[in-house]
Amino acid sequence: MQDGTSQVIDLEQPRTERMPIHPAHRQAGYSYLLHRHHEDEFDPEKSGPRTGAAGVLVCSEHTGTHIDALSHQSDSLVLCGGVPVSEVQSPRGFTRHGVEEIPPIVAPGVLLDVAAKDGVESLEPGRVVTAADLAECCEAQGVGVEAGSVALVRLGNAGFWHDEERYLAGPGMDASAARWMADRSVLAVGADNMAWDVPGVKDPELGCLMPGHLILLARHGIYIIENLALDELAASGRYTFQFVCTPLKLVGATGSPVRPLALVSA
Amino acid sequence: MQDGTSQVIDLEQPRTERMPIHPAHRQAGYSYLLHRHHEDEFDPEKSGPRTGAAGVLVCSEHTGTHIDALSHQSDSLVLCGGVPVSEVQSPRGFTRHGVEEIPPIVAPGVLLDVAAKDGVESLEPGRVVTAADLAECCEAQGVGVEAGSVALVRLGNAGFWHDEERYLAGPGMDASAARWMADRSVLAVGADNMAWDVPGVKDPELGCLMPGHLILLARHGIYIIENLALDELAASGRYTFQFVCTPLKLVGATGSPVRPLALVSA
Amino acid sequence: MQDGTSQVIDLEQPRTERMPIHPAHRQAGYSYLLHRHHEDEFDPEKSGPRTGAAGVLVCSEHTGTHIDALSHQSDSLVLCGGVPVSEVQSPRGFTRHGVEEIPPIVAPGVLLDVAAKDGVESLEPGRVVTAADLAECCEAQGVGVEAGSVALVRLGNAGFWHDEERYLAGPGMDASAARWMADRSVLAVGADNMAWDVPGVKDPELGCLMPGHLILLARHGIYIIENLALDELAASGRYTFQFVCTPLKLVGATGSPVRPLALVSA
Amino acid sequence: MQDGTSQVIDLEQPRTERMPIHPAHRQAGYSYLLHRHHEDEFDPEKSGPRTGAAGVLVCSEHTGTHIDALSHQSDSLVLCGGVPVSEVQSPRGFTRHGVEEIPPIVAPGVLLDVAAKDGVESLEPGRVVTAADLAECCEAQGVGVEAGSVALVRLGNAGFWHDEERYLAGPGMDASAARWMADRSVLAVGADNMAWDVPGVKDPELGCLMPGHLILLARHGIYIIENLALDELAASGRYTFQFVCTPLKLVGATGSPVRPLALVSA
Repeated sequence: MQDGTSQVIDLEQPRTERMPIHPAHRQAGYSYLLHRHHEDEFDPEKSGPRTGAAGVLVCSEHTGTHIDALSHQSDSLVLCGGVPVSEVQSPRGFTRHGVEEIPPIVAPGVLLDVAAKDGVESLEPGRVVTAADLAECCEAQGVGVEAGSVALVRLGNAGFWHDEERYLAGPGMDASAARWMADRSVLAVGADNMAWDVPGVKDPELGCLMPGHLILLARHGIYIIENLALDELAASGRYTFQFVCTPLKLVGATGSPVRPLALVSA
Repeated sequence: MQDGTSQVIDLEQPRTERMPIHPAHRQAGYSYLLHRHHEDEFDPEKSGPRTGAAGVLVCSEHTGTHIDALSHQSDSLVLCGGVPVSEVQSPRGFTRHGVEEIPPIVAPGVLLDVAAKDGVESLEPGRVVTAADLAECCEAQGVGVEAGSVALVRLGNAGFWHDEERYLAGPGMDASAARWMADRSVLAVGADNMAWDVPGVKDPELGCLMPGHLILLARHGIYIIENLALDELAASGRYTFQFVCTPLKLVGATGSPVRPLALVSA
Repeated sequence: MQDGTSQVIDLEQPRTERMPIHPAHRQAGYSYLLHRHHEDEFDPEKSGPRTGAAGVLVCSEHTGTHIDALSHQSDSLVLCGGVPVSEVQSPRGFTRHGVEEIPPIVAPGVLLDVAAKDGVESLEPGRVVTAADLAECCEAQGVGVEAGSVALVRLGNAGFWHDEERYLAGPGMDASAARWMADRSVLAVGADNMAWDVPGVKDPELGCLMPGHLILLARHGIYIIENLALDELAASGRYTFQFVCTPLKLVGATGSPVRPLALVSA
Repeated sequence: MQDGTSQVIDLEQPRTERMPIHPAHRQAGYSYLLHRHHEDEFDPEKSGPRTGAAGVLVCSEHTGTHIDALSHQSDSLVLCGGVPVSEVQSPRGFTRHGVEEIPPIVAPGVLLDVAAKDGVESLEPGRVVTAADLAECCEAQGVGVEAGSVALVRLGNAGFWHDEERYLAGPGMDASAARWMADRSVLAVGADNMAWDVPGVKDPELGCLMPGHLILLARHGIYIIENLALDELAASGRYTFQFVCTPLKLVGATGSPVRPLALVSA
């Protein structure tokens, strides 16, 4: 471990066929199927004692703990930075703003623990977290959100990973919270819910569901990390840390499964 | 970036349908298919300006830059540590030694640049790298391989990523090299070829192909990372670094795609 | 249409992501994802007015209306006709008794309408259909079951195709019914439920669930066709017909989706 | 078998991972992976002697012997019958002209054996079959092509199924041949090549590749069946037969794998 790092905290939820999946990504779903079994090739006289096993993975890139690439969202069919969808979209993904363009993320991280601020274990389903909530968190925790950093918002939702219905009904952020993050020029945001935004709530001004996705990805080029496991980090009592996240270079894809880490200093 | 880190070097090859795939994993292969296109849901009067796109990923867990879990290899149908395959294998993967058991790897890393030692850009196809080669590298580079570290062997093969036939024919390590690593109690090894071992060469003593897989995974519990992109790291001239690698917790799987990093100090 | 055929009755249920799937096959599941959309390649000046669209299908071969191949079931690890599993099984399927060995089925068909015999629209969940039921059907309908024919048993379950829970809970056949069919040397049997057998009932003598699968496939080489849509055929009032079923030659697979037909004579 | 049918001829090519695939459908490809192996659940004391095996199928609906649905092709983004693509296309396929709308095909069939007419075993790669060729076939064979029938064109290409490069380079039909079929109001056409049309040839008048696809599917609602195995039928010497083809009701899909049959009368 690097000088000064005393603890590596894993922020990924386990991936299984029973994990919660957003309705928009349920058809691709998540499956892991083992097809090569060790016995299949065991023939010690001919091939020695070694055998191998392997499987096939079928999944949406938006299942489990994952990061959204800029190609994932458009603003009236234009991607972040004025890139028209029609010029970069193909059946094999995007030639611009695919997830392979996200550099490895090694950046200052900050945890805003809204559940702790509210004095609850977990926010209620449907609870709308606003810019005011985020500002209060910063004050309560004595931290700020700096440009270029990664800001993780804890809603206390991670513990419901094994209860799809409750997990999906969870709380989320409104447009003001997304704008608050954009104003601070963060590199990425993350949360312990399925889609950052509050499920099923249309923003009255923007006229769309999931306004944070529009504001952050399409309008400000800020990545969103979803389905984070933030309870161990919160329990550590450390609100600032080194954040590491390495999106796979799935060329053309609109996101990637990830296993982010918080490296906590001694 | 953490205090003292001056450079983040990406060690992952890009993932595309044209990348080299080991014959054993070709049937599952690698595909990314975009099924939700932005136009599909664009209906601004009803849903505002936001649209989303997403795809499906179908792949072997052993495609692209990836790490092998201990369940990937057996020694006469027994996994590392005396775990009988018959007790832990299922159509949905392994209940022991699945890739989700690999902790996040944040460890000292060392690069052994065999190509540089030999004064070539890349080792010839079929070139067998031995324990003696590795020891010579250490001496030439003035480095050692410590217990608990991750040792990456550069063969100069990474540049052939876009030429499947040449890439697969590449050089590799023999059993002596694997034993040399095991003697040093490394946490993991890696290389810039498809399968660490020399392709198609049966070890005369063990009687099997890919002896390194048997020795490292099944007999010593040492993970193997394959298809690394090591040229930028070699060009940096830094043989020691902080190594970070975060295998996805694909519960039960025999490996995981990864995007490892070398964090180089100032 | 051939001389004398007055009606072609379709016996396949529609295939959608919401159709009932047997728990044993749910992980592979059923998905159809359109990745090539017509707009993607529309470029009339360069390529003229023609565009194409296409998708990817991911499914268990045992989803929807399908036929079981002989490799699907073993009797103590021996397939029908004394073929040891260990000699013919591989990660890519079976080298013997794969579904490609089933010839095109063009054979006399007979419908045994147990629901009609009982005077109900559909048999209750858990209702066990026995050899006696089948014999009574034959007598009531004035038909026999001949060697080489295909015998379809109607339980009145097909109408629940859009209600997975009710569909899966449906009625089925016990071991005596399977033996009755085997005694008559039919080529294949079929029914309008998920798995021919009664769900969840262990046969006291054989000690296994789904005894019909053991008796028919592994012990007598009789194919089983599942999830048939039999209501239109029953409504036609024709108990005998020409039965046509063309399993896809998915080399090595343990079954195939099919769209069987009943050709009813004038 | 029905009265008068003396022979059932199978017109499907076997499906394997090595079969030829059209470049447009190669990314989805074709894989069959067996994940449930018989040994996995063998536990005779607890579960009796019965075991099961099953796999997962991943494929484009346009692999192997298959039929194209009307949604597969558009004429300037309008499907057959004036259906705008924008109204019926979704990530999950088409709500109109999906393959489930093709009724079971039980129709008079006719074989036009162009290879035999030319006195060759197989037409050369790139050979363009025209309306004149088809008319000459009819005359040479003493047959006509009737409205509502299915017309199969034999190029002698089926024998190259195991040689992808040669198979894909095969001969095909030009626009005149497609118009000749449309003029006769056939229900469907078929051929023993990958895509009916000549590979890589742009029609000078229409300005597009694969003009037959535009003419037949988008402009006349005539289905195309590809990759037929026609050699056994040709060898039978019977140019007219009962043709049976049952596309799977893959709701929304642009085609379906099929196993067509020719029922030849005594």
